[in-house]
Amino acid sequence: MNRPAMQNYRIVLAYDGTDFKGWQRQPGGRTVQGAVEEAVFRITRKRTAVHGAGRTDAGVHAMAQVAGFRVATRLAEADLLRALNAVLPWDVRILELAEAPASFHARKSARSKVYRYRIVLAPRISPFDFRYALHWPHPLDLRAMRRAAPLFVRRADFTAFSSNRERNPVRTVRRSEIRKHGDELVYTVEAGGFLRYMVRTIVGTLLEVGRGRIAPEEIDGIFRRKERLLAGATAPAKGLCLIRVDY
Amino acid sequence: MNRPAMQNYRIVLAYDGTDFKGWQRQPGGRTVQGAVEEAVFRITRKRTAVHGAGRTDAGVHAMAQVAGFRVATRLAEADLLRALNAVLPWDVRILELAEAPASFHARKSARSKVYRYRIVLAPRISPFDFRYALHWPHPLDLRAMRRAAPLFVRRADFTAFSSNRERNPVRTVRRSEIRKHGDELVYTVEAGGFLRYMVRTIVGTLLEVGRGRIAPEEIDGIFRRKERLLAGATAPAKGLCLIRVDY
Repeated sequence: MNRPAMQNYRIVLAYDGTDFKGWQRQPGGRTVQGAVEEAVFRITRKRTAVHGAGRTDAGVHAMAQVAGFRVATRLAEADLLRALNAVLPWDVRILELAEAPASFHARKSARSKVYRYRIVLAPRISPFDFRYALHWPHPLDLRAMRRAAPLFVRRADFTAFSSNRERNPVRTVRRSEIRKHGDELVYTVEAGGFLRYMVRTIVGTLLEVGRGRIAPEEIDGIFRRKERLLAGATAPAKGLCLIRVDY
Repeated sequence: MNRPAMQNYRIVLAYDGTDFKGWQRQPGGRTVQGAVEEAVFRITRKRTAVHGAGRTDAGVHAMAQVAGFRVATRLAEADLLRALNAVLPWDVRILELAEAPASFHARKSARSKVYRYRIVLAPRISPFDFRYALHWPHPLDLRAMRRAAPLFVRRADFTAFSSNRERNPVRTVRRSEIRKHGDELVYTVEAGGFLRYMVRTIVGTLLEVGRGRIAPEEIDGIFRRKERLLAGATAPAKGLCLIRVDY
């Protein structure tokens, strides 16, 4: 019997980030990448790297993270998917699995990612929302926030809205909007790529706008001066969710 | 300054039952009743019993459990509510708090309770549903289940659908229906009161009907013979949620 050929797989994953130290494998930390790599090893007995489209931080969730890995197995796609889910912990699920062209790379091939941030404005937050949203039971000037949100749609140096100094801090945000659904604010942002903590810092800045501490008119200046301290605090991880990756 | 008068309070609670050993206080177990009593003690420095309308089992959730307690405090309702939530763990929230007539008793005054049971039929269950629904990715005869569900609407001895032998096993179910929402089955049941494990045993029986192992026509006989073993297995706690108590 021939050995099975090496195959490139593309998977779509959902995870509850609450109990993970983020996507990226790290020694001694429970991570999503580590959990998926361990599952692939348990099923195929091969050690292989699983590359994710976005390296979500500790506590950040995903409804449809995309990842890829190469492995040789005789298992058909549907069986491999079922087998991996059977050994993965409950808080990570593979929603789709399919063979991909050899050229496919989850991160490098990604054209754009969509993140969503949930803010519950009600006086009390339900335990069923607590793990997945920021609770903000204080007044906010929604009109100012709605004016500020689209100001992040630009190709620009996002250094002021990131915790790290990166070699190439230029990113292109294509969509940045805030909507109110009942007692909840939902911020949606789409870009080809994001700097570290970028979405959460934009959300923190929008909250400062809502509190009247930063005027929408000041956003341009913050971009120009590239000073992290001028922007708002990094909003908590739990409100953030990677909702889509486009190729 | 006078001492504050003893007052009867009515509260509405939501909780994620995953990490609780049920409602009822027990030595060494983390329970919802224990958590609320501890919060009342921390805020008022008085030990008092908190009575719940329904004693939900370990792992069962509540969107609107009703409870009551008597305590003397100078705190206004809104402040007492806020203070209690500030010391409660995240997985229990008091949604409403108000003074109640002296005659009010959360359990004895309750006229009816509504429970809901969620069953996810999709091949994969999202991590965001995993704690709150049973995953059933197997075929089910929904038509038979829909015929069987209303057969539980009756005033009858529910011994066959309970784990305990009780002195008075007669209960009156006023509503028992199953609906499909997309990839999910939702069973809703309303009664003045329930025996222990009664809803979960009815759900387990409906699943047996869906699998073709029990015919809807056999339900009457199971009631008559009062044999627990004739009904289906007790469905897992996590799919169950107390959604309303009426007075």
